[in-house]
Formats: sequence, structure tokens, C-alpha cells
Amino acid sequence: MIGIFDSGLGGLTVVRAIMDRLPGYDIIYFGDTARTPYGSKSPETVTRYARQNTDFLLNKGANIIVMACNTASSVATETIINSYDIPIFEVITPAVKLSLKTSKKLHIGIIGTRATITSGIYEKKIKKINPDARVYSAACPLLVPLVEEGWLKKPETRMIVKKYIHPLKVRQIDTLILGCTHYPLLKNIIQQKIGKKVNIIDSSITAAESVKDFIAKNPDIDKILDKKGESRFFVSDITKQFEKTAKVILNQKILLEHVSMSTTHR
Amino acid sequence: MIGIFDSGLGGLTVVRAIMDRLPGYDIIYFGDTARTPYGSKSPETVTRYARQNTDFLLNKGANIIVMACNTASSVATETIINSYDIPIFEVITPAVKLSLKTSKKLHIGIIGTRATITSGIYEKKIKKINPDARVYSAACPLLVPLVEEGWLKKPETRMIVKKYIHPLKVRQIDTLILGCTHYPLLKNIIQQKIGKKVNIIDSSITAAESVKDFIAKNPDIDKILDKKGESRFFVSDITKQFEKTAKVILNQKILLEHVSMSTTHR
Repeated sequence: MIGIFDSGLGGLTVVRAIMDRLPGYDIIYFGDTARTPYGSKSPETVTRYARQNTDFLLNKGANIIVMACNTASSVATETIINSYDIPIFEVITPAVKLSLKTSKKLHIGIIGTRATITSGIYEKKIKKINPDARVYSAACPLLVPLVEEGWLKKPETRMIVKKYIHPLKVRQIDTLILGCTHYPLLKNIIQQKIGKKVNIIDSSITAAESVKDFIAKNPDIDKILDKKGESRFFVSDITKQFEKTAKVILNQKILLEHVSMSTTHR
Repeated sequence: MIGIFDSGLGGLTVVRAIMDRLPGYDIIYFGDTARTPYGSKSPETVTRYARQNTDFLLNKGANIIVMACNTASSVATETIINSYDIPIFEVITPAVKLSLKTSKKLHIGIIGTRATITSGIYEKKIKKINPDARVYSAACPLLVPLVEEGWLKKPETRMIVKKYIHPLKVRQIDTLILGCTHYPLLKNIIQQKIGKKVNIIDSSITAAESVKDFIAKNPDIDKILDKKGESRFFVSDITKQFEKTAKVILNQKILLEHVSMSTTHR
């Protein structure tokens, strides 16, 4: 199965994009709602969580892993790839490649959580491929809570998006990467505030494209992926609000299954 | 020692109030920054976290426990009191008592996290003491992220506070309980939006008062509490932003010590 994890429910934008591109493929999803959000937490803590989430998905039968979380992809990719002997996908590289392919002026903006932006990962990856590119980034820590609350069209959300986007607009970027799997839900507002000439790259969609391309090129992997129409969605905590948010993001009602955790502080 | 825990750093408002009232008493604080916030999570998950936090503080030498978190106090108090044989303080009851003592019209408003408001704990406790009281409550889930971001005076914060407070203002409450340890940092804005005639009760201050009163009446407990000027502040995750937020809340620089956790999903 295709195993997908996120800090919470934002990763369901990646699930949706994969379901559109690979209909019938079984997905096993894990959303770490008991510890969400990751974007304000340290690289060490997020890496530990990413490893636990990967272990969980492997135990449930995942054959490939998609880290559907920009924060985890930013800080934990190397550790996860080095620790497991199966295909691991992250959401950063596909967005980076598309931005460099489509940007004319090579003035590229990135928005993401504080952890993603602080990691500098997008800038490093872009400059490694094309050192002439100019990269401008902005941490937008309040956008995840606004999306989780379902405040997708409220005036307060518009004001906050405008405030975050302003420094990028001033730099006259021609391309903006949505470096957080929650942000596609605010795409319309972001497009309005950054201007309609700016090309927005949705890292959830580019990640889904990269999984599709990989499967097309690797029939041996494709063969072992289940296609029984039996996707499952696990979460580490469950509330009515989480169920509501999941429905909004995935645009369909799904059954969230609760997984318990055992923890001790040392 | 006085052991105090919170979901993150909001509980430092309680620490500050206790330090003002009991200068010289040693405090051991635990902020669960690796899993913050609690306010959007389920009662079962929050109760499990509260128990782990209490165990941690007891291992570090706490003789009394203050749950400096309205969410944990709302959903976990009974379990914690039944599980441990030491004095346990929560932040709800002292605020409830003061509201009933000072409200003239007995039209009392409560604001808190979604978990606190959904629990209905304030209303139950108020009506148990005085069934004639009218209680109106509003969940304000975005206020914690706004405080954690340090957006204490921004226009967006004012707008969001106004939106949340509006239904309580319409009810012509004369008393408003700040049912979350983060909210004292927004007290001025909240007072402006609800109107200057409304008496605001800060559950961090009333909780600190209740600890002080208890100690004054229990010299046997007072005797075993350390007064060496050696307070310590533990957190389950550490970042620069957490250090900055802690400094803003406590109004002094403190050393945050990182505690690691071990976890598995089952």
C-alpha cells in the first residue's frame, strides 16, 4: 500500500491529489493529531515523530512512504531515507523542480511553517540546481490554525494572508511555492493577495505527480501495491472538529480510526 | 517543591502569579511544548498527557501539583485527584468562586479553548453553587496560537477577539472569566472589546491565590516546600520561538531545560 503521513490533517491534500491521479490505489494514512502541529517544533522532535509515524505505517503494510508534511520533509528526510530500505517520497523536491522549470525571472517565493522556513531547505535545493535563482521566503505560522479552524474565507484570514505575503510581493516574485500541505485550502486568497500574474505551485500536487511518475517507471513496485479500494485513515487523536476538518480537506466523509500512543517523559 | 504543568508556555502566567504571591518558594515547571496545544485535542488524550506530566513532576520532587492549564483542569481533574495522594490544584474552581462572589447580575461569560468550552465544566460548577446564575460561553481556539506568536497588539488579533467576544457582549454579561492561561496576555484587548464595565476574572491569578491560601492554612505542607530560590523550567521541546515566548510571558529571561520523551504508536 501507499503509506502517507502528516502532522495532522493537512496531508489529506496530498491524499486527494494522489487519489485523483492514481484512482483505485489503496492508501494508508496516518495523521498525528495528538501532537499536531509540527511547524512550531524543533527538528529533533519532528524527526523523532517522523520515524515513529513511518514505523506505524510499515507495521500496517505500507510498501512506499510519502511524507505529506513540508515540516517533516524539511527536517527529517535524510534520517528517514537512511533508516528505511523502501521508496520514501517528500514534498519539497518536486515543487522545487517545477518552480525552476516554470519561473521566467527566477524570482521564487516560498511560504511555509516556521520550522520549514527556518530549515532553509527550499532555498538550498533551488540554489543547488540553479545558483542564479533568487529565493524569498516567509514563515506563516498562523495559517495552519486558521485552516484547521475552517476559517477559509474570513476577513481576518485575508488580512493575515496579506500581511504574510506582503514582503514577497514587494520582491516581485513570479512564482510562489505553497510549502505546507494546508495552504492549498487558502490558494484563492493567496492568489488574490500575491497577484494573479504570479504562478502558484502547490507542493501537494507536485508530490502526488512524483509518486505517479515513480510508479509508472517501476512496475515491480506497482505490482505489489494493493488496489482493492480499501484505504484507511488513522489518527493519533480524534475529536468532532478533526472529523469536520478531514471532511472539508478531502471533500468527502471518511472514517478516522484512532490509534493510541504510549509515551513517557524521561 | 511546587510542581506546575501546562500544555506549553501559557501556564507561566500562573507561575508569575505564584511568584508574586509566594516569593522565594521553589517552583518546578513542566511545559509540554512537544505536544502543545491541548485545547483542540480529546479529553482522553489530554488526560493521558496530564498523568504523564504529573508523574514527571513527582519524579523531580514536587510535593503539590498545580495544573496550570484550563484544558487539563477541565477534563483531567477527577482522574488526577483520584490517582495521586498529594494536594492537586486546578485553575477552574477558584475562578468560579470569585465570579459568583463578585457578579451582581449573575450573568457570567467564559472564554476558553474548544476542549474547555465543550466540557461545560465552568457552567456545571457555577450552576452547582448557584442555579440562578446565567452562564454564556465562547470557544476561542485561535487565541492561543496568536499569543504563542506574540501577536499581542496586532489589528488582526483585535478583530479576532472582537468576533469571539461579540456573542457574550450581546448577552450583557457583567463578569467574564478568562478560562485559559494564555488569555491574560490579551486582557487589555479583551477588556476593550467586552466593555470597561465588565469585571474580568483571570483564572491564573485566582489559581495562584488558592495555592497561597492553602499553604497558609497547612503549615505541615508549607514546611516541606523548598525555598532555596532554585526554580527550574522543563519543556518537552525547545526552539528559539519557545524561549522568546517564555520570556514575554514571564517578563524575565529563564533557562528552559529540554526533557526527552519516548513514544510509540500502537
